[in-house]
Amino acid sequence: VDREAWIRALERSLEAEAVSTAPGDLQAVSHDESDLPGVLPACTCRPRTTAEVAAVIRVAMEHGVPVTVRGGGSGLEGGAIPLAGGIVLDLSRMDGVLAVSPDERVVVAQPGVTHDRLNRLLRSTGLHFPPSPGGSGDVATLGGMVSTDASGLYSLRHGGTRRWVRGLEAVTGTGEVLRVGGRVPKSSAGYDLKDLLVGSEGTLGVVTEVTLGLEPLPAGFVRATLAFPTIEEACEAAAEMAGYVPELAAVELADRETMEALRALPGLGDVPGEDLLMIEAQGRPGECAAGREAALEVAAAHGGQVVEEIGDPWALRHRMTRTLREAAHPAGVARTDCAVPLPALARFVNEIKSLAAAGGTAQTPRRAYVFGHAGVGIVHCLMPLGGAGSWTPDEARAARDSLAARAVALGGTVSGEHGIGLGQRDLLALEHPDGIAWMRRLKAIFDPRGILNPGKVL
Amino acid sequence: VDREAWIRALERSLEAEAVSTAPGDLQAVSHDESDLPGVLPACTCRPRTTAEVAAVIRVAMEHGVPVTVRGGGSGLEGGAIPLAGGIVLDLSRMDGVLAVSPDERVVVAQPGVTHDRLNRLLRSTGLHFPPSPGGSGDVATLGGMVSTDASGLYSLRHGGTRRWVRGLEAVTGTGEVLRVGGRVPKSSAGYDLKDLLVGSEGTLGVVTEVTLGLEPLPAGFVRATLAFPTIEEACEAAAEMAGYVPELAAVELADRETMEALRALPGLGDVPGEDLLMIEAQGRPGECAAGREAALEVAAAHGGQVVEEIGDPWALRHRMTRTLREAAHPAGVARTDCAVPLPALARFVNEIKSLAAAGGTAQTPRRAYVFGHAGVGIVHCLMPLGGAGSWTPDEARAARDSLAARAVALGGTVSGEHGIGLGQRDLLALEHPDGIAWMRRLKAIFDPRGILNPGKVL
Repeated sequence: VDREAWIRALERSLEAEAVSTAPGDLQAVSHDESDLPGVLPACTCRPRTTAEVAAVIRVAMEHGVPVTVRGGGSGLEGGAIPLAGGIVLDLSRMDGVLAVSPDERVVVAQPGVTHDRLNRLLRSTGLHFPPSPGGSGDVATLGGMVSTDASGLYSLRHGGTRRWVRGLEAVTGTGEVLRVGGRVPKSSAGYDLKDLLVGSEGTLGVVTEVTLGLEPLPAGFVRATLAFPTIEEACEAAAEMAGYVPELAAVELADRETMEALRALPGLGDVPGEDLLMIEAQGRPGECAAGREAALEVAAAHGGQVVEEIGDPWALRHRMTRTLREAAHPAGVARTDCAVPLPALARFVNEIKSLAAAGGTAQTPRRAYVFGHAGVGIVHCLMPLGGAGSWTPDEARAARDSLAARAVALGGTVSGEHGIGLGQRDLLALEHPDGIAWMRRLKAIFDPRGILNPGKVL
Repeated sequence: VDREAWIRALERSLEAEAVSTAPGDLQAVSHDESDLPGVLPACTCRPRTTAEVAAVIRVAMEHGVPVTVRGGGSGLEGGAIPLAGGIVLDLSRMDGVLAVSPDERVVVAQPGVTHDRLNRLLRSTGLHFPPSPGGSGDVATLGGMVSTDASGLYSLRHGGTRRWVRGLEAVTGTGEVLRVGGRVPKSSAGYDLKDLLVGSEGTLGVVTEVTLGLEPLPAGFVRATLAFPTIEEACEAAAEMAGYVPELAAVELADRETMEALRALPGLGDVPGEDLLMIEAQGRPGECAAGREAALEVAAAHGGQVVEEIGDPWALRHRMTRTLREAAHPAGVARTDCAVPLPALARFVNEIKSLAAAGGTAQTPRRAYVFGHAGVGIVHCLMPLGGAGSWTPDEARAARDSLAARAVALGGTVSGEHGIGLGQRDLLALEHPDGIAWMRRLKAIFDPRGILNPGKVL
């Protein structure tokens, strides 16, 4: 009865067809790209304006209904799964680019704009929004990237999304519209509410507008794929390059196991089955050449050499994770998202390999696909949950917990870029044993009724 | 009676001689570098450890005594003035550099370490902490820079202090020790408590340890001083250079009025009395040359040309503000600290000049010295409060209010880098009319008794 009451209240608040209870619509928003089990919401709302978002939140407040905000659904830790049912607030219709100011290097956009679309629209200005969610850029939205502080390939040079967010508009869990930050690159005016909302995964407020700083497109770039005799050598070279070759904008790692699995799949071209680094130097031609040369020198000192035949490494890199998951392991995978300080990178990757080797059998060893943004110490490990070399869910969970603890002990983080969401919730206290109580206090201020994305992050 | 009780409690908590009520000690911490009136505290505490800081906070909590934290005392908005008396927590003895990890590009230090000392100690590693507080680097401490998110000369390339802070330890107003952030460059683990403490000016917690990211010293640099026919042309050239010459790390503005006043003083060498930009390009020799050439082309299009005779422009720049204040206007000055978007820079500077011209007399027009970090739109205006061309305090306050409102209307900020402190407290609501209520709620969580730097920021 109450459900019908609040759904009717939503229908009165939003324009026609913005509220749906159709089974197909509910199914479509029940999950993200993780292999965590989906949950059906009671309804979806697809607002077009901030006022409509605020209206949804007010109805939710009044009736105590959970609200889970959703961007492109490309999250990997269940952040968009409507764990407690209720309303999925799907922002895909809020997809307007509201203002581009090239002389200010600023764009103002709604949260439903995708990463790739924004950068396509900006191309004629010679500017771009540098953080890249890799192969998910066609679906990942600005709102989603802001919510997880997404980083990706170019985080070595450009940091995460946070660095590029100058201002936000958000609707808090109290139904209030709040504008934080601003347009200028630097301000010391009061507490930094903007960065509190960035990375809060829809648990403190619903982001309804973003103001982003932009940067000129690089004058040029060169890319190279380098093969190493061992994963340790690749990691050590990555750490050295990232530290000492300033022209590099990206240093990506993919291990032999990953590459061999991809090599076994049809349609990917000539994939080398080796421990790889894929690098990109950016700048004027002289800088690119200097960067490439310096990186190759570092590689050579670690037994690495250029793989000539691979072509553009990014074409492969962008498809890597999804292809591995979908073609090689349709039964699903578990993931890690740790980051460690660069000097500990090789040690940490060895830890992963040892954990994998400790299980399975001699005939079918457990598989642990290791890749990531080595230049900033972010290492993902994919553990297949079905088929040859698979892990049981308990084994994968134990490995994930053990690696997260190890990453923290090494001075790293349990989540480099995917966010805590649902999947990494029990890891947060490892890293922030004191901070977590303060995070709870902040949550209670911004969302006193606990309606915003309940069960996530904390 | 109660004062004696809590001072005795402090003396029991800290080592001998760490607590002082000597008039000279109280006088020394009663003010900062602003011309706001000083206030004497009841005592000073000079702790050496985090445990001692926590002990001071606990005594203060118990007795309801205000605690004002103090670094080098070089703040310009009264942030360190103990407005409500009580305790000044002077962190100058917490000056240890605890760990340097060159391969991680990380340093861990206590808050009392000065900017210049840190960079001197780091020199042998080839790394540095890039934000520069200009001429105050010899006294500005890391704690103070973190507390105001100080930026300065190199903010065009390196942003403010915030970008370089990876982790903090702080004692909150509840006496709890809280570690936030971490060591790695990127994490998406939970709410960003670190950035909430950065820039909070000692009102949410007392920073007791900082973990900073570092960067390799630039391979080289070239500097140049450029003179322009008008301040508008200088501003337009600055905006264009900052937007389109990526090799530039700094673009500084100083107007004719500033330069003429300096020129009239002895001992500064041959100072050109013109509207100037001072620039620095960083990188390998080719990049420096390309950056300088591109900047000179932009300048030429705005009638600007190189001033050959000036030598190193930074030698003058670093002394500019203090010299103006101390030698030319010993009766004191009022300041503005606004920033505006680059396309509005010339218009905003004209606004300042018009405000100045609207007062005074034909014989002694009011003086408004304009300079700042033009590359990020930060414009300071100094208004003398005594002598020829001076403003009454009311006139200066009215001008400051009017300019702050104008900056906000143009999409800028009331405080680019000095912080809100005491001096800009009534401007914060102009910029964050909604946010200020949320800031108050956060303050109530971190400092429920209101003992941390009361009367500041909010």
